[in-house]
Amino acid sequence: LKAVLIIADGMADRPLKELDWKTPLEAARKPSLNQIAKAGICGIMDPISPGLPPGSDTATLAVLGYDALKVYSGRGAFEAIGCGVNVLRGDVAFRCNFATVGNNLVVLDRRAGRISNEDASKLAESLRKTKLEKSSNAVFIFKNTIQHRAVLVIRGPELSTDVSDSDPEKVGEKVLETKPLDESPEAALTAEILKKLMQKFHEVLMQHPVNKERVRRGLPPANIILCRGAGAVPNIKSLSQIYNIRAVCVGATPLIRGVCKTAGMKLIDVKGATGTPQTDFMAKAKATIQALKTNDFVLLHVKATDVASHDGNIRQKIELIEKIDSMLGYMLDNIDVDVTYLAVTADHTTSSVTGDHEGDPVPIAITGPYVRCDDVEKYDERACAKGGLNRIRGMDLMPILMNLIGKTKKFGA
Amino acid sequence: LKAVLIIADGMADRPLKELDWKTPLEAARKPSLNQIAKAGICGIMDPISPGLPPGSDTATLAVLGYDALKVYSGRGAFEAIGCGVNVLRGDVAFRCNFATVGNNLVVLDRRAGRISNEDASKLAESLRKTKLEKSSNAVFIFKNTIQHRAVLVIRGPELSTDVSDSDPEKVGEKVLETKPLDESPEAALTAEILKKLMQKFHEVLMQHPVNKERVRRGLPPANIILCRGAGAVPNIKSLSQIYNIRAVCVGATPLIRGVCKTAGMKLIDVKGATGTPQTDFMAKAKATIQALKTNDFVLLHVKATDVASHDGNIRQKIELIEKIDSMLGYMLDNIDVDVTYLAVTADHTTSSVTGDHEGDPVPIAITGPYVRCDDVEKYDERACAKGGLNRIRGMDLMPILMNLIGKTKKFGA
Repeated sequence: LKAVLIIADGMADRPLKELDWKTPLEAARKPSLNQIAKAGICGIMDPISPGLPPGSDTATLAVLGYDALKVYSGRGAFEAIGCGVNVLRGDVAFRCNFATVGNNLVVLDRRAGRISNEDASKLAESLRKTKLEKSSNAVFIFKNTIQHRAVLVIRGPELSTDVSDSDPEKVGEKVLETKPLDESPEAALTAEILKKLMQKFHEVLMQHPVNKERVRRGLPPANIILCRGAGAVPNIKSLSQIYNIRAVCVGATPLIRGVCKTAGMKLIDVKGATGTPQTDFMAKAKATIQALKTNDFVLLHVKATDVASHDGNIRQKIELIEKIDSMLGYMLDNIDVDVTYLAVTADHTTSSVTGDHEGDPVPIAITGPYVRCDDVEKYDERACAKGGLNRIRGMDLMPILMNLIGKTKKFGA
Repeated sequence: LKAVLIIADGMADRPLKELDWKTPLEAARKPSLNQIAKAGICGIMDPISPGLPPGSDTATLAVLGYDALKVYSGRGAFEAIGCGVNVLRGDVAFRCNFATVGNNLVVLDRRAGRISNEDASKLAESLRKTKLEKSSNAVFIFKNTIQHRAVLVIRGPELSTDVSDSDPEKVGEKVLETKPLDESPEAALTAEILKKLMQKFHEVLMQHPVNKERVRRGLPPANIILCRGAGAVPNIKSLSQIYNIRAVCVGATPLIRGVCKTAGMKLIDVKGATGTPQTDFMAKAKATIQALKTNDFVLLHVKATDVASHDGNIRQKIELIEKIDSMLGYMLDNIDVDVTYLAVTADHTTSSVTGDHEGDPVPIAITGPYVRCDDVEKYDERACAKGGLNRIRGMDLMPILMNLIGKTKKFGA
């Protein structure tokens, strides 16, 4: 017995005026999603707890069965791990942007004109030559990823994630000074290291030939690094330790890959999977079917729906839901439904009106042998609320799936 | 106001192909169960938490209102208490089997041919004369119960339940050496006491005239004691302390009786109640009605349904559900429904396919004065999922019942 969990990022929504007060899921044509709802048991799920808007990292931790409220320790480490950096326990990791500042360190462009990978790579190479002060006993790793994005990891004996961001996250505001967020010497040291490193980075970037060339070509210079989201690797058991399973992740988003890697899952690279609305859905479906052959559990993550929601692009969100539906149709046609459980959900609600993650529950449907199927016939937020699962929490999902595939241990006698 | 909680062990199931994808509850003729669902408020209940397969001990603790994940401390003590042994705090108790081993301590029969009570009693009498080493400062209690079953309690100043079983639980395997499961001196001492005691027991049994006679008659000798499930009495308040009620248990299964006794409940012996499919259901109903006269809360436990499920005997499971239904019919006819609440549930789902306890929720229905009855008309896993209780946890049930009979205290002002 095997299980596939499909997570469509931010797919759940609220009823929208533009859709005659339907949600995008309710408005979309989605025969395969409906087929799963019809054949299976449905419900609604609070990713963390009712009303709490989760991040994609905390929600994914939760649906993998972890108590996110207890174990979450910031986004940075997941992002860095998802980008292939080997983050160790005790490291403090940050998400970074190449950005453009003007006089007085006022942010002019948080993405330095969505700088090319090529330019960013050259700049990163120079930044890596920066030396931390010996007295700090720390070293750092800096890696650019896609366009303006990068990750920074500081490694040393006594660091803390309790430091503030330098990224003001708003154009027109001044770059912030990194400060300790508690009274500990670790936080003070980490803030100090970061502050000095950011100053040195700024100096290197201001002088850099790549930036001089950018200015000449009329492009915004990437003259500063902004960092945010200090995080450490959470101290959690792997899924294989907990359930004795082989688990893999099919997904392109670094943050989600980082969470899955931290949970001990293998990461599968899929050609054409991009974490954007242009991703190759069918390639992901095929990779999932392939992965099922040698694994017990596959998490298939699709980022695209969240991107459309953040942009408030309702039409695109519906189109993407329909593409996900086609992907599921292919999977239903090509997996052995007698030995495979399929669960479909979203990691959180993203409102196309507010453009933000919201605290509403998400729909969940589970099909597979011997599930107590109910009379729900459609896969959407309101139809699933009448299903046999009633209302569960994200943390409950993994025990339910693992029980169905025979991987839970009896508690008691 | 009084309350009766009827727990049918393992009665809940998954849809079965043999029953046209109905569950045994859905397939059974059960007018009284349906009447309770119709008159009452229904729901589904996770005995411990979604997806987690509970034991009958942990599930019973939970539906009595205790946080099983926190207070459970092994099966052995409940079993011993249920067999009438006075287990004290600090004691370590084990479930034991009279078994047959051959050369090299390989287990040939885990039940010594289901040895007669008479033979087992004679052997136990001799075993009780064994002396523990003085240096251990410990004493022991050994009591045979039914056929090959027995309980062992070790009493001493510094013992631990963190010791491994000697019972390999499989024929053809060697008897295991009892080992400490942590680094504590208490676990080391307990394992050492147990190991030496088992050796002495083995020596006594090998020489015993009863066994020589058994071999002569072609019966397997009960030449070893296997032990498992080290447990201590959990540190919990009694139901009378928590709710100021008089509570009793009508049930024959030692494990359940042990849990109830630990919760401070009185145990009622019912002639003909056996904890097997052949139990006298009507005698239990009558005992319950009698007990209601002088008590506030009666737990009526029926083991039979779980036995049928473990055997994968679907027909028998349905028949037993129908017998439980008749028992409930008698109760409905003979209790004063104006002052009595009836709650019917299962302690866990037992799948007739896997033969194991599973993590699916169980149905729950509560009737009685002023309950917010819903429109559920049938008592089964899927019909109850649409009820007004929605999805609750085992731990929630006792507060709900105690509130209905006016035994809860306001929290706050």
